Amino acid sequence: MPSYTANIRDMQFVLHELLDVSASGVPGYADLEREFTEAVLDAAGKVSSEVLAPLNAVGDHEGCRLENGVVRTPKGFDAAFAAMKEGGWTALDCNPDYGGQGMPYVLNCAVGEMFVSSNMAFNMYQGLTHGAVSAIEAHGTEEQKALYLPKMIACDWTGTMNLTEPHCGTDLGLLRTKAEPQEDGSYKITGTKIFISAGDHDLAENIIHLVLAKAPGGGEGTKGISLFIVPKVLVNADGSLGARNAVSVGKVEHKMGIHGSATCVMNYDGATGYLLGDLHKGMRAMFTMMNEARLGVGLQGYAVAEAAYQNAVAYAKDRLQGRAVTGAENPGGAADPLIVHPDIRRALMDQKSFLEGARAFTYWGATLIDRAHGLSDHEAEGLISLMTPVIKGFLTDKGFEACVLAQQIYGGHGYIEEQGMSQFTRDARITMIYEGANGVQALDLVGRKLAQDGGKHVMAFFEMVKAECKAHEGDDRMKPFTGALKVASKQLQAAGMYFMQNGMKTPNAALSGSYDFMHLMGHVCLGLMWTRMAKAAYAALDGGASDTGFYEAKIATGRYYMARQMPACAMHLARIESGAEPVMALAADQF
Amino acid sequence: MPSYTANIRDMQFVLHELLDVSASGVPGYADLEREFTEAVLDAAGKVSSEVLAPLNAVGDHEGCRLENGVVRTPKGFDAAFAAMKEGGWTALDCNPDYGGQGMPYVLNCAVGEMFVSSNMAFNMYQGLTHGAVSAIEAHGTEEQKALYLPKMIACDWTGTMNLTEPHCGTDLGLLRTKAEPQEDGSYKITGTKIFISAGDHDLAENIIHLVLAKAPGGGEGTKGISLFIVPKVLVNADGSLGARNAVSVGKVEHKMGIHGSATCVMNYDGATGYLLGDLHKGMRAMFTMMNEARLGVGLQGYAVAEAAYQNAVAYAKDRLQGRAVTGAENPGGAADPLIVHPDIRRALMDQKSFLEGARAFTYWGATLIDRAHGLSDHEAEGLISLMTPVIKGFLTDKGFEACVLAQQIYGGHGYIEEQGMSQFTRDARITMIYEGANGVQALDLVGRKLAQDGGKHVMAFFEMVKAECKAHEGDDRMKPFTGALKVASKQLQAAGMYFMQNGMKTPNAALSGSYDFMHLMGHVCLGLMWTRMAKAAYAALDGGASDTGFYEAKIATGRYYMARQMPACAMHLARIESGAEPVMALAADQF
Repeated sequence: MPSYTANIRDMQFVLHELLDVSASGVPGYADLEREFTEAVLDAAGKVSSEVLAPLNAVGDHEGCRLENGVVRTPKGFDAAFAAMKEGGWTALDCNPDYGGQGMPYVLNCAVGEMFVSSNMAFNMYQGLTHGAVSAIEAHGTEEQKALYLPKMIACDWTGTMNLTEPHCGTDLGLLRTKAEPQEDGSYKITGTKIFISAGDHDLAENIIHLVLAKAPGGGEGTKGISLFIVPKVLVNADGSLGARNAVSVGKVEHKMGIHGSATCVMNYDGATGYLLGDLHKGMRAMFTMMNEARLGVGLQGYAVAEAAYQNAVAYAKDRLQGRAVTGAENPGGAADPLIVHPDIRRALMDQKSFLEGARAFTYWGATLIDRAHGLSDHEAEGLISLMTPVIKGFLTDKGFEACVLAQQIYGGHGYIEEQGMSQFTRDARITMIYEGANGVQALDLVGRKLAQDGGKHVMAFFEMVKAECKAHEGDDRMKPFTGALKVASKQLQAAGMYFMQNGMKTPNAALSGSYDFMHLMGHVCLGLMWTRMAKAAYAALDGGASDTGFYEAKIATGRYYMARQMPACAMHLARIESGAEPVMALAADQF
Repeated sequence: MPSYTANIRDMQFVLHELLDVSASGVPGYADLEREFTEAVLDAAGKVSSEVLAPLNAVGDHEGCRLENGVVRTPKGFDAAFAAMKEGGWTALDCNPDYGGQGMPYVLNCAVGEMFVSSNMAFNMYQGLTHGAVSAIEAHGTEEQKALYLPKMIACDWTGTMNLTEPHCGTDLGLLRTKAEPQEDGSYKITGTKIFISAGDHDLAENIIHLVLAKAPGGGEGTKGISLFIVPKVLVNADGSLGARNAVSVGKVEHKMGIHGSATCVMNYDGATGYLLGDLHKGMRAMFTMMNEARLGVGLQGYAVAEAAYQNAVAYAKDRLQGRAVTGAENPGGAADPLIVHPDIRRALMDQKSFLEGARAFTYWGATLIDRAHGLSDHEAEGLISLMTPVIKGFLTDKGFEACVLAQQIYGGHGYIEEQGMSQFTRDARITMIYEGANGVQALDLVGRKLAQDGGKHVMAFFEMVKAECKAHEGDDRMKPFTGALKVASKQLQAAGMYFMQNGMKTPNAALSGSYDFMHLMGHVCLGLMWTRMAKAAYAALDGGASDTGFYEAKIATGRYYMARQMPACAMHLARIESGAEPVMALAADQF
């Protein structure tokens, strides 16, 4: 059975030595002193290891089931959910006006990483609620906020997001769910929604569904879409629960993974709904939360892989098989541990160098969100908007790969469900799909974000990378970092140039390379993070830090990433520059 | 529910236009005229589509269960197994002296591809039997052959291979199962074996286990290992069934995939066993069949992906979502089919260009095995010995990736078990692990095969690639193929040179790059196949073939592989040339 221990040392390194959060001037960040975050992370780590991780396999094994119209969650989920509420973990970064603790988003990310690593499926219930809270806070009336937010922030009520329908997911313009206006200002919502995470369950007394539907008069496609609040149980003006609404669960899906998360078909049969935000502006309202939601999925991608990695390391140290080619390292034993073998190292270093880079990238992204919100910093807003598809697409692709690598280290035992390594792979698989499949992320990046505001955000990113390389010019120790980063950055710029020169005439030339561009940019982002982390580690060593093992490992892990992962950039550029022709050459019937 | 239709057109292209089997002078190949193979493949395709494919999801859903000491296979497996026996499909390439049909191995591969594509788990029962038959035929006494082979070739009795024990898989020197010699010349076998595919089931009246165990006097490690025949039910001298042997099923494993295949813990409690081959030469006996067994797993890797691909293509043509960026292609519909989108094309072309290359590579490998056996051709023997870890390791890694790509095209529906795309991914995952995990394949390739016979086989391969490039020098149409192949081949040679220059002094420098070398060589092999296939396709077009669509698609698909996959070679070389330092830098406790 896998276990999980939060890597608090590394989280603290990222928060304080890389990002120096408490000194960065973002509202709320002054509180994030090292001792304070250590205390919060310690407490969250304890809950993760002791409450959530032991339920991870239970959730996978039992799954959720529909009984008499109600979804039952796996054994122990209710008690754990109560413990999470009791500890205030559901309210960490929420608005204190409604009972939240008002912590910055970046701290919520670090804590959320632990919750996901220890039990991704369980964490969906509060994660979806968090998204719904953000939507109501951003777009609700004062009455709506007062009515729903306190209960939702406390997770007495949970939330959902209802976008997908059987015939449409990515292309929401096709959706059919109808909203008919009523005389009292409410709407009757009718339609079927699918893939609704936490659509029903037994962990809360009410569920507040946010539903995209078409109200009359809005025009064709996505323009006609509005967002509605549709409570499972109607809420009286005084906050007490009223009648059951006309919303029911059609089915709980049997999925590849995250079995503990109830993925439901939801039927709305003239259910009472209340407009959230402006009429016919539902898409805009829903996508306000997009950066945060997508960053959250990118985080899931590497957080699951972190748990898988920890168990792979333990197995590689424990399992005796074969001898080191350079001579026995465990001569008293029947064989050496797996970790002596270079190819096992290669697999572990692939994981470790990705995971630490991904953590830095994600927390950095979270500070951009905090900065954009707290300081109305448009540059930060533009930069995180550019980075969002990369965080989501690249980190989930690579997170899944990392889970597969971790599973592989177990050999045949990795394929046996009892060992738990299969679950990580199966759970991680969804992160590449939901919240916009990764191909859609690539399209968003290349088709929209690159050119946003006249391309100024991507230009600012190139400048940032250039400045980083320049800053370390005199430091020979930094050459393995800046050298590789400079090469990769030029390759990324060359790819952007290719799109500019060819994309106008042949849009498919840009779109055929979009997926490779997302990965190329992901490597440049992680290369930038590794350069900054190496600098911070050298600074600590130069300053006489006692924890030399940590910093030396950090630098060596970064060197691995630069030497062994950055060469992927040239491959991605070559693919991009091969253009649309090879991709589009066949007629549909030739496949 | 997924469906499967054998791609007989492409199989015929490989057999006849690429490999020209019937003219190649290998014993038995003269029979392989186009009309004959077409008839065999048609019949096998029918069984695959109509009998095996419909049971694939059933097997996944039901799995195997242990009831009162006997393993029960999923509903319908027994009737399908009877149909396979009835059709003679279990005996296709077996020795006619024992009831086989004596067809060449290459034809068995083409047929086997269909069986795996349609139902990988089901095909394990006969696949394992095939391996056991080969072992008995190669190492058994005349009496043993007469006693076991006819029943096993008919699949009235099935076979197993028992290598792994709880504490050892790769490192068989550690195994503990004991064989105690008895006065009558038999042995008492005692020990526990795990991960035994088809270890027990209800499809046959007897199961012939081949078991590795240590008999006294053989010395330490693998030198002390012998191979034994241990029937589930003892067989009398006249072939009739006798007493139940002391072998029992401890458990049926709950696995990530291939649920229809019973993976068993087998307990031998003083079971009667008979020596197969020479005493203390068990490893050698077991590994006689290794090239064939590993080629078979490489075949599984792409065969499962072929089924996944077919369904992804159908979905991409059917599912309406979004509009082509170049203007609506289905203006009468609510949206365009997915297949208009460049990134969907990219994913489909990645799969198609891999699958067709993998098929060619595998069948070519099978002809080398036929050639080595039928003509005692030592060059063919050396070449297939070199290629085996590449076929196994590269094709299963890429096959799994292809399944993930196919699943991704379904979006959220790909994650729902009902759709069947998850099963392909879960089933394919095991191919990277069993029959020697892919890291072990890479080690075999770099640590053993490259230097075999003084490196003459790898040198011969380099010459073969060089000659192929030279042969098309005057043909401009072939430049996209020979150009990319030449570059990649030089990169492969540079990697080999790096190992030679550094591996003696620093063995870890070679082993740290072994996995990348396996992939680099895989791309060169597929590049070679695509070059030859392009040539064959141009020859057909030049010769006025009517089926121009097929040949044009073949050439375009090959161009895609050369343009978009071959650039991975430079990345692999860069990783290899970064050496052991980044890989081995950390102490074990720094992970």
